[in-house]
Amino acid sequence: MTRVVQKFGGTSVADIDRIKAVAQRVKAEVDQGSEVAVVVSAMSGTTNQLVDWAVQAAPLHDAREYDTIVAAGEQVTAGLLALCLQTIGVDARSWLGWQIPLRTDDAHGKARITEIETDTLSERLSSGQVAVVAGFQGIASDNRITTLGRGGSDTSAVALAAALNADRCDIFTDVDGVYTTDPRIVGKARKLDRITYEEMLEMASLGAKVLQTRSVELAMNHKVRVQVRSSFSDAEGTLVVDEGEIVEQEVVSGIAYSKDEAKITLVRVADQPGVAAAIFGPLSDASVNVDMIVQNVSEDGKATDMTFTVVKEDFERAMAILESNKESLGYERLVSDSNVVKISVIGVGMRSHAGVAQRMFMALADKGINIQVISTSEIKVSVLVSEDYTELALRALHTAYGLDAA
Amino acid sequence: MTRVVQKFGGTSVADIDRIKAVAQRVKAEVDQGSEVAVVVSAMSGTTNQLVDWAVQAAPLHDAREYDTIVAAGEQVTAGLLALCLQTIGVDARSWLGWQIPLRTDDAHGKARITEIETDTLSERLSSGQVAVVAGFQGIASDNRITTLGRGGSDTSAVALAAALNADRCDIFTDVDGVYTTDPRIVGKARKLDRITYEEMLEMASLGAKVLQTRSVELAMNHKVRVQVRSSFSDAEGTLVVDEGEIVEQEVVSGIAYSKDEAKITLVRVADQPGVAAAIFGPLSDASVNVDMIVQNVSEDGKATDMTFTVVKEDFERAMAILESNKESLGYERLVSDSNVVKISVIGVGMRSHAGVAQRMFMALADKGINIQVISTSEIKVSVLVSEDYTELALRALHTAYGLDAA
Repeated sequence: MTRVVQKFGGTSVADIDRIKAVAQRVKAEVDQGSEVAVVVSAMSGTTNQLVDWAVQAAPLHDAREYDTIVAAGEQVTAGLLALCLQTIGVDARSWLGWQIPLRTDDAHGKARITEIETDTLSERLSSGQVAVVAGFQGIASDNRITTLGRGGSDTSAVALAAALNADRCDIFTDVDGVYTTDPRIVGKARKLDRITYEEMLEMASLGAKVLQTRSVELAMNHKVRVQVRSSFSDAEGTLVVDEGEIVEQEVVSGIAYSKDEAKITLVRVADQPGVAAAIFGPLSDASVNVDMIVQNVSEDGKATDMTFTVVKEDFERAMAILESNKESLGYERLVSDSNVVKISVIGVGMRSHAGVAQRMFMALADKGINIQVISTSEIKVSVLVSEDYTELALRALHTAYGLDAA
Repeated sequence: MTRVVQKFGGTSVADIDRIKAVAQRVKAEVDQGSEVAVVVSAMSGTTNQLVDWAVQAAPLHDAREYDTIVAAGEQVTAGLLALCLQTIGVDARSWLGWQIPLRTDDAHGKARITEIETDTLSERLSSGQVAVVAGFQGIASDNRITTLGRGGSDTSAVALAAALNADRCDIFTDVDGVYTTDPRIVGKARKLDRITYEEMLEMASLGAKVLQTRSVELAMNHKVRVQVRSSFSDAEGTLVVDEGEIVEQEVVSGIAYSKDEAKITLVRVADQPGVAAAIFGPLSDASVNVDMIVQNVSEDGKATDMTFTVVKEDFERAMAILESNKESLGYERLVSDSNVVKISVIGVGMRSHAGVAQRMFMALADKGINIQVISTSEIKVSVLVSEDYTELALRALHTAYGLDAA
């Protein structure tokens, strides 16, 4: 018996008509003989309304009350979808986080799943009943509702699929799969049939919005076969799978970009042991996320330039911290630039292929695009360039790595 | 230590500003040194929206899913009020039905409370924390959310007050108390300082909308002192109490009216044993609620007229049933009239005072108002008259019983 977890996001359940359409998709899976658990988000707009009320009620809110309030959104969708399923003759019932129970730690607002009790749920699935599970929510040890943070319904779905030993976890969304790059920018972008967990993880953390990073990590750790597919068509989507399942691996699978970073340079900071720690310690203490870091070779052995990027949200805070520590850090001046984009080429194939970075540098140079910062990891190469070149760079790289659709 | 349960309805928590105003009222009670539990309804409009969605999803809906959906409304208000209280420095937390737990039977959609566990709640109250309780909801033995039916938050509040041995249960509403009659019709209507449970029960079931009938029954059974008061003013409201607490009892406390009934007469039905059972049996089987019943004395010993009233909602159904049974019932014809009003004078004092009904008949006769049907109980006299005379009759009776404000 095939067991499938399906997850539908906010736009897929935006109103009753869409929820009815979702019910039809669930029924189609049931009619194929599958056991189905469905994870739903709040109807789109609902969560924002609830968050807005919570903020109006208390700018600095008690996260336990916040969770109680916002979890109501998924509760409503779960009940409504169960009703729509019953109406078309599918046995179904709703499950709230505390009813399963889906246990989490006590980090309200961004809780982590610790345990999912599946005995009853599994029994019901085997008896042919569809389980409609309210996503995004769980229950803490003090018997209070927790939420998993933004996008948490993806995480609920993958965790549930792992706990239920599901054969597949279908994430229905408003795109029909994972693309080699953003198709709104590169007309020749192709939908990928398969992608590895590691690549998906890089894509997710580098700006591709299809899946939440945490849910991909979870899928990777538990080997859950995730399929990203469209709520609005029957087309096959993209399967996120283990590397072993992909026979012919491309060197580069995709190209991601993020405009969410800003660059900061400390000019002529002392070139001596401990200077990096002195700079990044205070930033870390203030929860500023630092991404790319480059330290130039010192010319005179006394001072060097230190460049790094932070997410734009943290930019003002980072600058303030650095300025207030100017004396102790001993740099000459701060230079910053928000008009930058980080472009990354990603592919597990580059582990076994040389020259991947070189091809990137040459393609960009051909178009006269100056690289400001470079960072590499085992399966990706990222460069920081001026934001003005975003589209030009993406198209050039897409062609250079042979990703263009025929 | 005074312990108080406060209940705020939907219009009192319609938006964040009103919820903040409610928080201030709760704080005022806390500042007086009281231990406070607050029961809240859904923000006005919310329940209707949720019900509307449920109906769209499934016209004949699974009551368990319906309850899961609509209970979300009170959940949100409870969280928001807890936040508003915390913001003004009042220690508070929200409690959902399943968290208390407030246990009910399994009659989803109109569940009855079976048990409220108060150990933890009572402990928190004693420690100075305000308990913000989501009204209208409980949990059934199968671990699923139940709701108590329309107006159920009043019932939640009274039941909680009983379980917590509260000194008082304040029901905040959009009127400032219980009046001798509808002040929109009778300008000289007076707010009552006190009213007995039994009178309140009659008032509630006879059309006065201030309190739900079930909540008054519950208050009476557990001797909970209920105060009906305004959300929008600090004025004292009306205390609903045991008869013994009212020193000088008026003969008549109030006059209620209901336009929600229709009159049906079976003309020349056989005057023989079993005829009443033959008429009302089929109506009862079809869940038609019959209220006032009058059987005239037979003139010729063979046939009589049988007149009774039903609520307007059941009228068409009642007529159809009677018509389809015309042959077996053997009446000559059916006469019906929807243009009627039932007017009731209510007062526990009439137990010990004669002539109460007579005064009513005279007052109506003086104004030339014809009485169509009369029914009496221990503490009320009801008459059915033409709807056109509603205002005239109410004013005449209000004066006749000495209820007019000075």
